[in-house]
Amino acid sequence: MAQDKKQVTAITPRDKDFAQWFTDVVVKAELIDYSSVKGMFILRPYGYAIWENIMHQQDARYKELGHENVAMPMLIPESLLLKEAEHVAGFAPECAWVTFGGSDPLEERLAIRPTSETLFCDHWARTVTSWRDLPKLYNQWVSVLRWEKTSRPFLRHREFYWQEGHTIHATPEEAMHETEQMLEVYADLCENWLAMPVVRGRKTDKEKFAGAERTYTLECMMHDKKALQSGTSHYFGNGFAKQFDITFTNKNNEQEHPYQTSWGISTRLIGGIIMVHGDDNGLVMPPRIAPVQAVVIPVAAHKEGVTEASRELLARLKKAGIRAKIDETDNSFGWKAAQYEMLGYPLRVELGPKDMEKGQCCIARRDTGEKYFVALEDLESKCASLLDEIHDNMYAAAAKRLEENTFYAETWQDVDEIMEEKGGFVITKWCGDQDCELDMKDMAGVSSRCIPFKQRGTEGKCAICGKTCTTDIMWGVAY
Amino acid sequence: MAQDKKQVTAITPRDKDFAQWFTDVVVKAELIDYSSVKGMFILRPYGYAIWENIMHQQDARYKELGHENVAMPMLIPESLLLKEAEHVAGFAPECAWVTFGGSDPLEERLAIRPTSETLFCDHWARTVTSWRDLPKLYNQWVSVLRWEKTSRPFLRHREFYWQEGHTIHATPEEAMHETEQMLEVYADLCENWLAMPVVRGRKTDKEKFAGAERTYTLECMMHDKKALQSGTSHYFGNGFAKQFDITFTNKNNEQEHPYQTSWGISTRLIGGIIMVHGDDNGLVMPPRIAPVQAVVIPVAAHKEGVTEASRELLARLKKAGIRAKIDETDNSFGWKAAQYEMLGYPLRVELGPKDMEKGQCCIARRDTGEKYFVALEDLESKCASLLDEIHDNMYAAAAKRLEENTFYAETWQDVDEIMEEKGGFVITKWCGDQDCELDMKDMAGVSSRCIPFKQRGTEGKCAICGKTCTTDIMWGVAY
Repeated sequence: MAQDKKQVTAITPRDKDFAQWFTDVVVKAELIDYSSVKGMFILRPYGYAIWENIMHQQDARYKELGHENVAMPMLIPESLLLKEAEHVAGFAPECAWVTFGGSDPLEERLAIRPTSETLFCDHWARTVTSWRDLPKLYNQWVSVLRWEKTSRPFLRHREFYWQEGHTIHATPEEAMHETEQMLEVYADLCENWLAMPVVRGRKTDKEKFAGAERTYTLECMMHDKKALQSGTSHYFGNGFAKQFDITFTNKNNEQEHPYQTSWGISTRLIGGIIMVHGDDNGLVMPPRIAPVQAVVIPVAAHKEGVTEASRELLARLKKAGIRAKIDETDNSFGWKAAQYEMLGYPLRVELGPKDMEKGQCCIARRDTGEKYFVALEDLESKCASLLDEIHDNMYAAAAKRLEENTFYAETWQDVDEIMEEKGGFVITKWCGDQDCELDMKDMAGVSSRCIPFKQRGTEGKCAICGKTCTTDIMWGVAY
Repeated sequence: MAQDKKQVTAITPRDKDFAQWFTDVVVKAELIDYSSVKGMFILRPYGYAIWENIMHQQDARYKELGHENVAMPMLIPESLLLKEAEHVAGFAPECAWVTFGGSDPLEERLAIRPTSETLFCDHWARTVTSWRDLPKLYNQWVSVLRWEKTSRPFLRHREFYWQEGHTIHATPEEAMHETEQMLEVYADLCENWLAMPVVRGRKTDKEKFAGAERTYTLECMMHDKKALQSGTSHYFGNGFAKQFDITFTNKNNEQEHPYQTSWGISTRLIGGIIMVHGDDNGLVMPPRIAPVQAVVIPVAAHKEGVTEASRELLARLKKAGIRAKIDETDNSFGWKAAQYEMLGYPLRVELGPKDMEKGQCCIARRDTGEKYFVALEDLESKCASLLDEIHDNMYAAAAKRLEENTFYAETWQDVDEIMEEKGGFVITKWCGDQDCELDMKDMAGVSSRCIPFKQRGTEGKCAICGKTCTTDIMWGVAY
């Protein structure tokens, strides 16, 4: 039957070809299948289960903070998209357009939503009339479509899954607070659930969201030292409200335009998980979001009682709230070990006849490969503490990489040299001029990732023009 | 401030104009807003919350039964849709077509999925190779698009939300078992969660899903005695597998085509909830799926201690697992009572100074309007038992309507007369000939709803052609 069994085949070593390693992991761990349309990917059960866990964790947080889920249409009339000039300039070039309904050409073509600001504005223009209607704190879990020229699994899909929060408030202060709050919700997800340390900051005008007054961002360093934008939160002021004619009567009985925000995270985060934590044996899942936290493997299962005792361990783990499964197939132990390393399950619990005699089991952790012989009565407590340890260890490793590969430089020549020799993030002073930002891209090949919230507060010289200034800006190469 | 407050305005009486009553409820209960695209509706927070509760209940059931969620692309290449002849004939005429990506015309136009059988088949043709890969039990929660000429909130959207289960099996028996099992899962949802009694049956060839060998259905009677198809489950045999060239190696090392099913429920069910249970005061929510099961209203809240005591009741209800909220706004008691009747909250818990003196609260139920004075210490147990009673009462009322409006007839003339005078469902004998089915539509204005699983087992004459036969068929007017 060996020909029937899927083989755990080798993947390209990570440091030999990072891009190929990434694709190998995505395919071999059965996260994604390529579809018949270029740039549109199928999320297979394991890939979707990761996204589901992110959704459940985040959805509960949003609701705790008073947000409500809604569902807007997936199609946007062209005239609606055209209402906000910056926004349409940013998104229209990459819209997919519906031009026929059945066999009839449409009077007006419709864009599949690339993002839904215009739809929310259109709705609020009809439904918000008084300060009593505010705030509206809405969110939706949907897919959106952007007709990109190039595509890569998780990192750049023509269709990708995300949530988009959209809120509308009576005052700019409230809207700004919302913008900041949601960035922090995302940072908590990245750091405390995905074990991904992030740099919090503000995008420059060049890099901000089309139509936003301010965009806040989380920038995360991947294993190859490139940056992945891992969550963004936008403050719109009342610009959209003016264009879409959204007004409300305030408490003084005056007409005012309300203030808006939007914020989103997407399945890109799964690309981040892979590229921050994965290794030459495959995926390494952060325990708190892992669809399977522990797999029980009966060893020499033909021996009396092994299967039954293994099932009992499974039941105990599940009862303790640990997401666990068992592998009772007739695949070899070596195959199973390699397979679950590929899938990145944090813990492997092995039980054989000799373990049973000794009243123990063997627990192997994915991140370090360490093995522990654990008394059976300590199973649940040891697994729970190991899952926390693994999280902490994965976070610490990523934080160390971020720290060791974040540099300070004074001139663009220094930046160029650092990127040439080492790669990573480089922080310099910046005068705030967009020409300097563009010059840095031309001369050192890096784009601005953000103006970090943590500023040194020192005076220095713009790395490009040499003008005296205080702002720290962080540069890097982005996915 | 009165001009700021939303008024609970009257809705059209249900028995005066059922269609207008339905639209009034949908809009006044803030379930839906009309969007800028004809036939595409916005699910507002309350409407979406109902769908969320249905999703959570069903998703847990599917997973218990071994199903996994996935995400297929929203776009289908025309050539893929064309592979199964019956299927394409059923769906291509109502597809929305994407013809441009950005400013470039596409080489092949892409349909926004009207349903995803072709996408799952395409995926399985690449990934299923051995009996070890089977079964695959997949589901996805998405929206689909059908370019209908006419539309109505919840009942007929161009874009609607649903789940589509798709499974693939090694044997026809397994696939048939899945088809039947999922119909029963839907029946359980309708009856035990939505308080909607259903008739289980099989669709005729004329009414079955395009490409299916068999379609099973649940037919539910609305207040106006029309039928709403409330869930369907399809058995495909290996027809799709042949067209899409899906093969697997069986245990005897032979190549075989596998067997498939699909099954779905949609936001139409919310239309069903409204039309089965609603009344002249608005929505009446089945308690087990209601987003809010009880609203606490402080009466004479300016009196000392009333607000605090009311909040305590809220906390106790929540702790007892009852979905509850409180209304502390300065709207009048009359306004609140009318508003929560409109929204159909099953229970209203009122607490005023006199109640506090007596150590009681007043609980009003939405379905009957009855009021109970309840000792404060009995709050949780009384609410829990009332929620069950309300469910049972709502189910019983709907079951009585179904029973009283289901008739047996012998000829098409009888059917015509019954439909003219009373409306409802009419069961006759049917010879199985599609011409007779079409004639019945022409002559009595009814379509076949299903061949009920419960058959009388008697011999009789086809109501149209008079041929001797045994099959019972159920006729009605469908939404």
